[in-house]
Amino acid sequence: MARPQTDIEAGREQLLDAVEDLIRQRGAVDISLVELAGVVGMSASNIYRFFESKEDLYSAVAERWFAEKIAIMEEVVGLDLSPRDKMFEFFARRFVSMMASFEAEPELFISYMELGREHLDVVRGHIDLGDHYLAILVVEAMEMGYFPGLNIDRVVSLINQMVVPYCNPDVSLMLMPKLNVEKLGQIIDAVFAGLGQFAKQRESVILNILE
Amino acid sequence: MARPQTDIEAGREQLLDAVEDLIRQRGAVDISLVELAGVVGMSASNIYRFFESKEDLYSAVAERWFAEKIAIMEEVVGLDLSPRDKMFEFFARRFVSMMASFEAEPELFISYMELGREHLDVVRGHIDLGDHYLAILVVEAMEMGYFPGLNIDRVVSLINQMVVPYCNPDVSLMLMPKLNVEKLGQIIDAVFAGLGQFAKQRESVILNILE
Repeated sequence: MARPQTDIEAGREQLLDAVEDLIRQRGAVDISLVELAGVVGMSASNIYRFFESKEDLYSAVAERWFAEKIAIMEEVVGLDLSPRDKMFEFFARRFVSMMASFEAEPELFISYMELGREHLDVVRGHIDLGDHYLAILVVEAMEMGYFPGLNIDRVVSLINQMVVPYCNPDVSLMLMPKLNVEKLGQIIDAVFAGLGQFAKQRESVILNILE
Repeated sequence: MARPQTDIEAGREQLLDAVEDLIRQRGAVDISLVELAGVVGMSASNIYRFFESKEDLYSAVAERWFAEKIAIMEEVVGLDLSPRDKMFEFFARRFVSMMASFEAEPELFISYMELGREHLDVVRGHIDLGDHYLAILVVEAMEMGYFPGLNIDRVVSLINQMVVPYCNPDVSLMLMPKLNVEKLGQIIDAVFAGLGQFAKQRESVILNILE
């Protein structure tokens, strides 16, 4: 995370640390600004210098939660790798980071998941950002001839569905013992060797028979 | 469902209807045999003629829930179709049946899901049976040259992961607006054109370069 630039930013970071401690202690309960002010020994009026509203606070909590994932996606998009390897890194790095975060503090992780479900409006934009980066990788791959006969939106949707166990935290926790990065790699292989290829394969079988 | 053969079987079916009504009314709450006897106006001692224990009752509830899915899998395994089309029917028919069952009575469906989570020991065998039938289809496909370089267990696991949104009811409900049978067909296409094919594809690219 970047070093806070101003006193306000430093104050926000400290308050976000306090919020995380509250979530750690109490789970995914609702936290008001007045309550948070009390916890950190700040006046109720003073806290509004740092967060305009509870929505503003929750947005900042979500932003902090997603910061690492977004950094990973931005980095991967810029890598000089084959489309297949880039796609693999795109999902594998976030999966590994998510599992590490779960294993470090399982209860905290689960509380964040609950908060996310209760505040879908706040996390929606961050989740959509994942689709945005994925679409960039899909376009790069399509320019090299992958996914013939399919349009971008469909490919993004199909890939999202095929790797759900590795990118949807609820599903990852549900299936955790069965998941590993090698299997993810084999699924990404199938995405690249297979998506949109079956019709072509059938055609070539038919052409072989006709010849 | 087969016609009940004996009075005991007919009685069990009636009691299972009563259990379903209880779940419909009260949700996924615990139901004891004595309570069930009271609901149907049967003596507590009489109900033990039909179910030996609460576990026996819950097993029967699970068996009834899974009966249609198992019938679909048994039928599909016997169909004279290409491995790809058979695999598609294997998942598509159960997905369509599951969605119909959800849409007919969403609350009842969700209560059954909750009961399943609370009694994993009872449903485990039925879920494993799905893997058993899937393995049969995978072996048939491997005999025709599909999934090169992968072993049966790995292929079963990879396919299960790639179609999670279409066969895990919790995930299906979570992603429902994004799911449809056409997309499932395109994922199954990718499974057949792609699983185990990427290494081969890379080799042939290298051979082309060397030639």
